[in-house]
Amino acid sequence: MKIKANEPKLKSWVEVPNGSDFPIQNLPFGIFKTRYLNPVAGVAIGNHVLDLVYLHENGFFQDLNLPQGIFNQMYLNDFLGLGRKKGGEVRQRVSELLQHDNNELKAHKAASEIALIPMSEVQMCMPVRIPNYTDFYSSEEHATNVGTMFRDPENALLPNWKHLPVGYHGRASSIVVSGTPIHRPKGQIKSSEAKHPVFCPSQKLDFELEVAFITCAETKLGSQITTEAAEENIFGLVLFNDWSARDIQQWEYVPLGPFLGKNFGSTISPWIVTLDALEPFRAKGPEQFPQVLPYLNFEGPKNFDVSLEVLIQPEKSVPTTVCRTNFKYMYWNMAQQLAHHTVNGCNIQVGDLYASGTISGPSPGSYGSMLELSWNGQRPLHLADGSERKFLLDGDEIIIKGHAEKEGVRIGFGECRGMVLKAI
Amino acid sequence: MKIKANEPKLKSWVEVPNGSDFPIQNLPFGIFKTRYLNPVAGVAIGNHVLDLVYLHENGFFQDLNLPQGIFNQMYLNDFLGLGRKKGGEVRQRVSELLQHDNNELKAHKAASEIALIPMSEVQMCMPVRIPNYTDFYSSEEHATNVGTMFRDPENALLPNWKHLPVGYHGRASSIVVSGTPIHRPKGQIKSSEAKHPVFCPSQKLDFELEVAFITCAETKLGSQITTEAAEENIFGLVLFNDWSARDIQQWEYVPLGPFLGKNFGSTISPWIVTLDALEPFRAKGPEQFPQVLPYLNFEGPKNFDVSLEVLIQPEKSVPTTVCRTNFKYMYWNMAQQLAHHTVNGCNIQVGDLYASGTISGPSPGSYGSMLELSWNGQRPLHLADGSERKFLLDGDEIIIKGHAEKEGVRIGFGECRGMVLKAI
Repeated sequence: MKIKANEPKLKSWVEVPNGSDFPIQNLPFGIFKTRYLNPVAGVAIGNHVLDLVYLHENGFFQDLNLPQGIFNQMYLNDFLGLGRKKGGEVRQRVSELLQHDNNELKAHKAASEIALIPMSEVQMCMPVRIPNYTDFYSSEEHATNVGTMFRDPENALLPNWKHLPVGYHGRASSIVVSGTPIHRPKGQIKSSEAKHPVFCPSQKLDFELEVAFITCAETKLGSQITTEAAEENIFGLVLFNDWSARDIQQWEYVPLGPFLGKNFGSTISPWIVTLDALEPFRAKGPEQFPQVLPYLNFEGPKNFDVSLEVLIQPEKSVPTTVCRTNFKYMYWNMAQQLAHHTVNGCNIQVGDLYASGTISGPSPGSYGSMLELSWNGQRPLHLADGSERKFLLDGDEIIIKGHAEKEGVRIGFGECRGMVLKAI
Repeated sequence: MKIKANEPKLKSWVEVPNGSDFPIQNLPFGIFKTRYLNPVAGVAIGNHVLDLVYLHENGFFQDLNLPQGIFNQMYLNDFLGLGRKKGGEVRQRVSELLQHDNNELKAHKAASEIALIPMSEVQMCMPVRIPNYTDFYSSEEHATNVGTMFRDPENALLPNWKHLPVGYHGRASSIVVSGTPIHRPKGQIKSSEAKHPVFCPSQKLDFELEVAFITCAETKLGSQITTEAAEENIFGLVLFNDWSARDIQQWEYVPLGPFLGKNFGSTISPWIVTLDALEPFRAKGPEQFPQVLPYLNFEGPKNFDVSLEVLIQPEKSVPTTVCRTNFKYMYWNMAQQLAHHTVNGCNIQVGDLYASGTISGPSPGSYGSMLELSWNGQRPLHLADGSERKFLLDGDEIIIKGHAEKEGVRIGFGECRGMVLKAI
């Protein structure tokens, strides 16, 4: 009988260091390249990447009826398009091949050496081509903090907030993979005292800690996805940094929402951690009151217990953790987000990315942005190297990490990392 | 010597009926299919479509050094990606082949019969795969009307409006080609008197008359496009109907902008009218005051004189023109829009679609939406069949038309058409 990929006792014949994000229970999918290989699909295991093209071409997936060349592509879209079930079958088969007592791959020294590439020798690429990107605003704590700062502390949440998962469309072209530096954006800024705006580099550059889900289905315009069916359409999750220029955003965003304050860049972590791997980490979300409309009803635990943290590492200095929070705090879960997004007939596509919005927890140390952590610059953060931050400085590197952990099994996301370069 | 494609005296050996949108001076590009052909690229001439695959495969473009199969694709993206200059060379060559005294194609009866397909036998498809879609809000009259209705008639324009071309990101997946019906969206609606929102079909379904430009270049994240260079990156224009559900939009849009009130569908006309063909129709835009920031400065006439109209045709009834306006009224021109969009380093991609925002003129008959025409339902429109409209009814077909005309030459866009179906 097959041992399930999520079984906590499973061990791999590939060495997995203690504390690794990528034990055999995880097996996230990504796109990597090396000095010798164009971008192709791989799976992370310990400190190695397993080359799926090699496995496919050498018959290791022969019972799965996969299209030829499905992994030999720049993006995972076609693979994701096979659906969540087929993705689960591939993950299960990879799990078998890597299991401690399985000799199929292990016994072929040459094969296993070719198929397993040390992470130090690969460069991770964008895992998907993103046809559409939506950003939600689904953390009650974040929305409350922002409303308190910029509107009315007594009525921090707007009237619609508890009735629907507020969201807006973002820019897909400027989403980049972890490790890509981001230039400080320039734009129009107008202080409340000034009569006219000025054009200059943003003085309030910020990160936003988010988690994003990636879809693996294509629906027809006019159709909708219920909360019950939503997760079948979600392949997995990545960490997401929604870089924000608060001063640009503030001047531009009324009445049509964020634009240049956001679209200069967003960063994702390179490994898509499957919803299958996260299955043991389901959690109940916050109580929802007032009661939601029927199309937003759902059953069972639809949040996920994923610990998240953000570190700031100034240039040539040490990192400081500035935020620790958890994905489970989200007021609106992914099933509700997708049901709401499509209830008007809006169609989804394979590879779409849907971000959670900034994830803040209940305490100040759990706020997911500098805007909240420094309370719009009023309370500077103290970093380990003795420096202070109200917002980000050139040379700062932002590192987002995330993992779920239970019964000694750690399902990690790797890093979502990006350095701020000076304005061009 | 070659006769330029825009020369007003040019005639084609292909019959072009009087009043046709597609004389030899136009030659817009599109994707079409027939009973016998998968989607391929074509050019409109009179009542015919010229099959570019046939021309390419039979050597008619041999001096142009085009990639093999460039026209034998579902979308024009790869062709547009060759750049505006190369697109102009292809248009010039097609012009030569169609000129009255040119025998290269004309003389081969079989060839010309295969290459020229009656429009009645083709179905037009989406001309491009749209990686990113942005909607601007660049008509002063429209923004003033909306501000007067929903905010303050004394301060109808928000403080940022004359300093920057306000825009937001829209949903690319739900943009469809002319002729595709649109189901009335359902969603959350809350009247000002109600305590809670209800879920029901939109009661305030609207069109928005817009013109959109399509880009033909890929830029790097961090780079910017100046107003001077902007038009090199614009291949051409299409008509655009930004269907809107005003009641859904009103409840959801604060603070992050329009979402489900817009993303259930947008319609484009199928032919990309090149900026080259529109060159003779340049016009000066409105005076801009206060003076714009230097990065938004531009020289020369950067607006275009394109007459636009909207017709409503109730089911099994006659159409009524409800709006006549002109693209030249835009306060912010396309060069300014693209310069603003990229000034923060946001990258553009081939096939991106950038819509103008609703185009309203100075008089009530020139307003580009039902919201303005009926003043949010207060002044119903009277249609030719005796019926009234505050907003759109099921079965209504919206037809947008546009053309530029001068010295007897008419550069038309064809139709952007879509029928409202009842909610699912």
